[in-house]
Amino acid sequence: MNLKEELLNNKRLFTGKIFNLDIEEVRLPNGQTAQREIVHHHGAVAVMAFVNDCLLLVEQWREPIQRLTLEIPAGKVEPGPQNLEDEALRELNEETGYQCPTLERITGFYSTPGFTDEYLTLFYAPHLEPVTHKRPLDEDEFLKVHLLTYQQVQEKIQTGEICDAKTLMAILVWEKLRLKEHYHE
Amino acid sequence: MNLKEELLNNKRLFTGKIFNLDIEEVRLPNGQTAQREIVHHHGAVAVMAFVNDCLLLVEQWREPIQRLTLEIPAGKVEPGPQNLEDEALRELNEETGYQCPTLERITGFYSTPGFTDEYLTLFYAPHLEPVTHKRPLDEDEFLKVHLLTYQQVQEKIQTGEICDAKTLMAILVWEKLRLKEHYHE
Repeated sequence: MNLKEELLNNKRLFTGKIFNLDIEEVRLPNGQTAQREIVHHHGAVAVMAFVNDCLLLVEQWREPIQRLTLEIPAGKVEPGPQNLEDEALRELNEETGYQCPTLERITGFYSTPGFTDEYLTLFYAPHLEPVTHKRPLDEDEFLKVHLLTYQQVQEKIQTGEICDAKTLMAILVWEKLRLKEHYHE
Repeated sequence: MNLKEELLNNKRLFTGKIFNLDIEEVRLPNGQTAQREIVHHHGAVAVMAFVNDCLLLVEQWREPIQRLTLEIPAGKVEPGPQNLEDEALRELNEETGYQCPTLERITGFYSTPGFTDEYLTLFYAPHLEPVTHKRPLDEDEFLKVHLLTYQQVQEKIQTGEICDAKTLMAILVWEKLRLKEHYHE
């Protein structure tokens, strides 16, 4: 069976600052039709970064979930063709005041492909240093920077302050690096 | 500085089958106002499950990203108070025809809290067996079941067929379990 769906009709319901909302009518593999609700997003970048072996996290209010969270520095990619490493370095500078010469790409993933095309690219920076020229935050962005040890990070997972996919993914990668180091691989 | 935003006004722009879209006006910590675009979602469950040490994956067309993917079995939680383990067992049955007596919760996370409250709970099932009474798929759902070895899973990450957050997160957890087993911890 061919699993592909065929686009029959597309309607833009909302054009936003963060995403656009489309309702698509598609032809299903069995010939029937169905509606798909799709959030179009330009994508995001995030950085797993360390200062003196502490993980760099930003604390911010997340209105969708009505709480403060601790997340790795991240941000949405500007529309148009972009160098993702440069975008990640810009976010790092704006949000935290730290920098490094280059970033290593670790992984990338669709956040939740059932309803959105948001793709997040995760970078790694083992050693950061303070920037000399900090760029300003977006005007509607407010946050605090934290540096946490591995043990403190584990505690913040338990309290639920660390609770988002990209940050938990980065911490799993960190744990894997630590395990391998521990066994001198 | 208090980072919390205060809700001033909320407007429901779209009521869908998968999510609802709200536009909120909020008071920022500096007294200014801003708009927040928010996708409200009932949440999801997913299962990292194994049959004879092979990872259970479902292949399906993802219209938002215009491609076939291989993902761990997952689905959205029905509205109202639900037992998440039962929801996960139901999805497992419907999508794959496999079952197990109980599931272990591994982790849970907000998929992308910048714009949605979708929360995904990830369960673990080390040994599955075929169901005796398979439940039907949703009428607009078409998929194929795959069982892949660790090596095959790594190849499918390289080809990009495995490309979503929950599946890559599950595979990182699997890698951690394998590393610990390897060193007889």
